[in-house]
Amino acid sequence: VAPLRDPYLLFLGDAPEPLAAKTANAIFHWRPEKCVGQVRLPGCAVSLALPELDPVEAVARGARTMVVGVANRGGILAPGWVETMVRALDAGLDVAAGLHDRLHDVPELVAAARRAGRALVDVRHPRADLSVATGAPRRGMRLLTVGTDCSVGKLYTTLALHAEMVARGWGCDFRATGQTGIMISGDGIPIDAVVADFVAGAAEALTPAADADHWDVVEGQGSLFHPSYAGVALGLLHGAQPSHLVLCHEPRRPHIRGLPGQPVPGLEETMTANLQAARLTAPEVRCCGISLNTSAMEPGEARALCDDLSERFGLPCVDPVRTGVGAIVDGLAP
Amino acid sequence: VAPLRDPYLLFLGDAPEPLAAKTANAIFHWRPEKCVGQVRLPGCAVSLALPELDPVEAVARGARTMVVGVANRGGILAPGWVETMVRALDAGLDVAAGLHDRLHDVPELVAAARRAGRALVDVRHPRADLSVATGAPRRGMRLLTVGTDCSVGKLYTTLALHAEMVARGWGCDFRATGQTGIMISGDGIPIDAVVADFVAGAAEALTPAADADHWDVVEGQGSLFHPSYAGVALGLLHGAQPSHLVLCHEPRRPHIRGLPGQPVPGLEETMTANLQAARLTAPEVRCCGISLNTSAMEPGEARALCDDLSERFGLPCVDPVRTGVGAIVDGLAP
Repeated sequence: VAPLRDPYLLFLGDAPEPLAAKTANAIFHWRPEKCVGQVRLPGCAVSLALPELDPVEAVARGARTMVVGVANRGGILAPGWVETMVRALDAGLDVAAGLHDRLHDVPELVAAARRAGRALVDVRHPRADLSVATGAPRRGMRLLTVGTDCSVGKLYTTLALHAEMVARGWGCDFRATGQTGIMISGDGIPIDAVVADFVAGAAEALTPAADADHWDVVEGQGSLFHPSYAGVALGLLHGAQPSHLVLCHEPRRPHIRGLPGQPVPGLEETMTANLQAARLTAPEVRCCGISLNTSAMEPGEARALCDDLSERFGLPCVDPVRTGVGAIVDGLAP
Repeated sequence: VAPLRDPYLLFLGDAPEPLAAKTANAIFHWRPEKCVGQVRLPGCAVSLALPELDPVEAVARGARTMVVGVANRGGILAPGWVETMVRALDAGLDVAAGLHDRLHDVPELVAAARRAGRALVDVRHPRADLSVATGAPRRGMRLLTVGTDCSVGKLYTTLALHAEMVARGWGCDFRATGQTGIMISGDGIPIDAVVADFVAGAAEALTPAADADHWDVVEGQGSLFHPSYAGVALGLLHGAQPSHLVLCHEPRRPHIRGLPGQPVPGLEETMTANLQAARLTAPEVRCCGISLNTSAMEPGEARALCDDLSERFGLPCVDPVRTGVGAIVDGLAP
């Protein structure tokens, strides 16, 4: 992926409900300073607190990339979106998307990009220069989020930890491994789209050696206990060579996402398995906190659960939305 | 990968020493009935017990594919090979290779294949219709080889187990996951070349539901303890949903292949980790044998080690070359 040039014009398309525009939402939530406006098509039921701009107006306000912040089932590039994308290219914007369909596979877009001298950025398509991992030890602190399942708050937790470190003036980088994270960061590697042999190597490339007190805060992917994606999680764990893990969990998840009947593993089991696997390349790794998504719980109940887990594991336990992640970062202070 | 059409003409190129032609060697060792001849270039220091045939003669003897059975450092397609490949295509042979370089990226070969109406088969390039794994239970017996490291005899052991089952008249299929295995079998999926998200799904597709007493004997890849490739091994383990594991090991391996300083894990640790991980999709999985590559040991010493491990683990322990794998298959008899 070429780095994305910001600021962004956020394309919401014809998103029928907020969840369809969750990528745009996340970008605006975490990087409002990168967003100059939104563009919506007829039927769009979502709006962010951003001015409605057409591509020409957006360029006048400094925008450099129109980012597709909407997804439909299957990650299809809807034909109805192409006209706006062509107008964006003609107005001088790059166009970036993390869809399953590639922008580069739409001849009209390729032609328009060439004509306008602008870039199409397919965020789900990894760069081609990746290597096999070496496992060689490297300097720097690296914190990786791991989870009991997919979609339990790893990205949110990672961004919250990074923001907290930035607020404290620590040297740190957010390292994105998925499409939304890459759009937020402007850079990264879509780790689940990498050829299997190179997953750990991609994670090494994403988190290079750094000063001993520098933090790479790395977005985790999948789960060692997800039958579809555990290999991705393990490759990332080995390549990231984490000094610290934060364990993410959604307490009310009834079963592994997308797989009814597949039980969600326990926190202790998940922590043990991740630490054990991580030690292969990071012998000193330790777990430094637990991050819960308690959105389905009453506040009092959520607080009691955090207190209980914190005591049981002897670690800070937070909900990044309700309590922030300060308690975890406190424990990392030099 | 399109299935390879046999019989084969084995291309040995300018192999400077036997190891460079190990793919050709393995094909000829395991499937002599598929091999009608060999073709060698000036400087080739390797010869199999096969007639020297040019492509036209090979076609006359029934050959349908010229298989590149030689590899050089980096998996490069040597420019000096192209002329023979073009002659093979013109003579009516498909050309198959498992090189890093793709046959399809050489314009001369693409043109010759089109002209002759023949296929170029890039064995390392997986088919495009793979899906994410479901983890859903399926019928049939599946035996997967796993290892303490890469290149400890998993392919050899898998083929020996399959041959033993065939000899006993059992319903069974060898399932290839790497380039040499695919050339031997004529079909398979190069699992380490699959996009990370689809590794477990590829393993599911490779080993579909079958009769309850049918055996899929699945070639393992990598090792859960290899810092570069563990994710591949884990995805394969989950997708293959093995009822049985055979643990492969080379006792004299000084360190993980290619990574001096990275210790080879113990047999017990490897067995435990693989069984634990496999249970996620195959709760009834068990280890049914140990297979050693004792080629670096004296015969007496090798025999003593097999006896010792067999007693220690309560499992048959074999060297497939020295003792065969009958003892393992005995334990699987209905």
